[in-house]
Amino acid sequence: MANQQRGFCYTPHVAFSATLEHGGAYGPFNTDKTLVFNKLITNIGDAYSNATGIFVAPVAGIYYFTFFYHAGGKSKSRLILCKDGESIVMSSDHSTSTDGADNGGNAAVLQLKEGDQVYVHMAKDTHVWAAETQTSFSGFLISPM
Amino acid sequence: MANQQRGFCYTPHVAFSATLEHGGAYGPFNTDKTLVFNKLITNIGDAYSNATGIFVAPVAGIYYFTFFYHAGGKSKSRLILCKDGESIVMSSDHSTSTDGADNGGNAAVLQLKEGDQVYVHMAKDTHVWAAETQTSFSGFLISPM
Amino acid sequence: MANQQRGFCYTPHVAFSATLEHGGAYGPFNTDKTLVFNKLITNIGDAYSNATGIFVAPVAGIYYFTFFYHAGGKSKSRLILCKDGESIVMSSDHSTSTDGADNGGNAAVLQLKEGDQVYVHMAKDTHVWAAETQTSFSGFLISPM
Repeated sequence: MANQQRGFCYTPHVAFSATLEHGGAYGPFNTDKTLVFNKLITNIGDAYSNATGIFVAPVAGIYYFTFFYHAGGKSKSRLILCKDGESIVMSSDHSTSTDGADNGGNAAVLQLKEGDQVYVHMAKDTHVWAAETQTSFSGFLISPM
Repeated sequence: MANQQRGFCYTPHVAFSATLEHGGAYGPFNTDKTLVFNKLITNIGDAYSNATGIFVAPVAGIYYFTFFYHAGGKSKSRLILCKDGESIVMSSDHSTSTDGADNGGNAAVLQLKEGDQVYVHMAKDTHVWAAETQTSFSGFLISPM
Repeated sequence: MANQQRGFCYTPHVAFSATLEHGGAYGPFNTDKTLVFNKLITNIGDAYSNATGIFVAPVAGIYYFTFFYHAGGKSKSRLILCKDGESIVMSSDHSTSTDGADNGGNAAVLQLKEGDQVYVHMAKDTHVWAAETQTSFSGFLISPM
């Protein structure tokens, strides 16, 4: 973390956004999957890995995370924001024969210890649209604590 | 508020997230209702009450609020982020016979005085999905002011 | 920017929210359009213009932006968060004959230089619902940098 004192005020900078770009419809798969949001928009503090999809808290603090997704109607969707194996908030959509597509997302404020891991899981047998920057994952440190 | 000076920098910590867990479809009701997001994820500063659904600003400042929801297609949905009785931002969905479900949400930056109240209203004759952490309400202090 | 030192801690205040209010369905048009979110909710620091729809970064730093929208099913929707002519994140919906309406949104953390411009584009031949505070654009400075 290359953070400096700024006047009298030390604030570590931790903030990222990335999108899921795997060429179009992604899934369904026969197991749960950690979504690897591979295209970086911002990654200040390098706490998010676009090789694994996992954010690792570099300092204890209060963080905000949010994800948004697009999904075609052929299969259902089920995306879950997770912290160290625990499901925090979820968003899903049914499959439909008539509605071409749907959108969803969710968000959470989390108090993390240094080293806590946060990521987005896609439930098995569900899918998402992984193209055109429509499906994204973002997070930032609100305040160290 | 158990806030301390942190080095030279005083930052009060106010941040919460909670989900709506009332066993599945919730509503429609014949009056407007304040949604009681009863399952706490985070509640630093204890400014949000999971008994009433109401956030009360502990200090004057700039805050960010967001909500996300899931709703089945049988009834319409209409959720409104409110501040002291005033509607700020809204999200709705029609009822449909064919699309099993829809998602929505909204967000706002608000400048609050100490004691201002922020909450999510569900309009009468509408409904929401209150299970599986799909419907959530979050907020945090960006900066005291 | 009328910011002051606050104790020992200088934090410039930059935060806005606005909604799109143009009387109902808005579009489709035969060219791309910058959406003018004309009804201000909050505009601390006056960095967002509700005459042009454009946010201009008053200081270099890490910012968070998000938009949410509602759209009827008659036409498709395609909204894009842009920075200085570059597409950052997008959200879209198909047209459908059966589903009355859909919702969407997206978000991004951006590292901006002073003067960088951020706004929401609506792609040509698409539409959005511009009424009832359902379609909104918000942003704030997380940290100067």
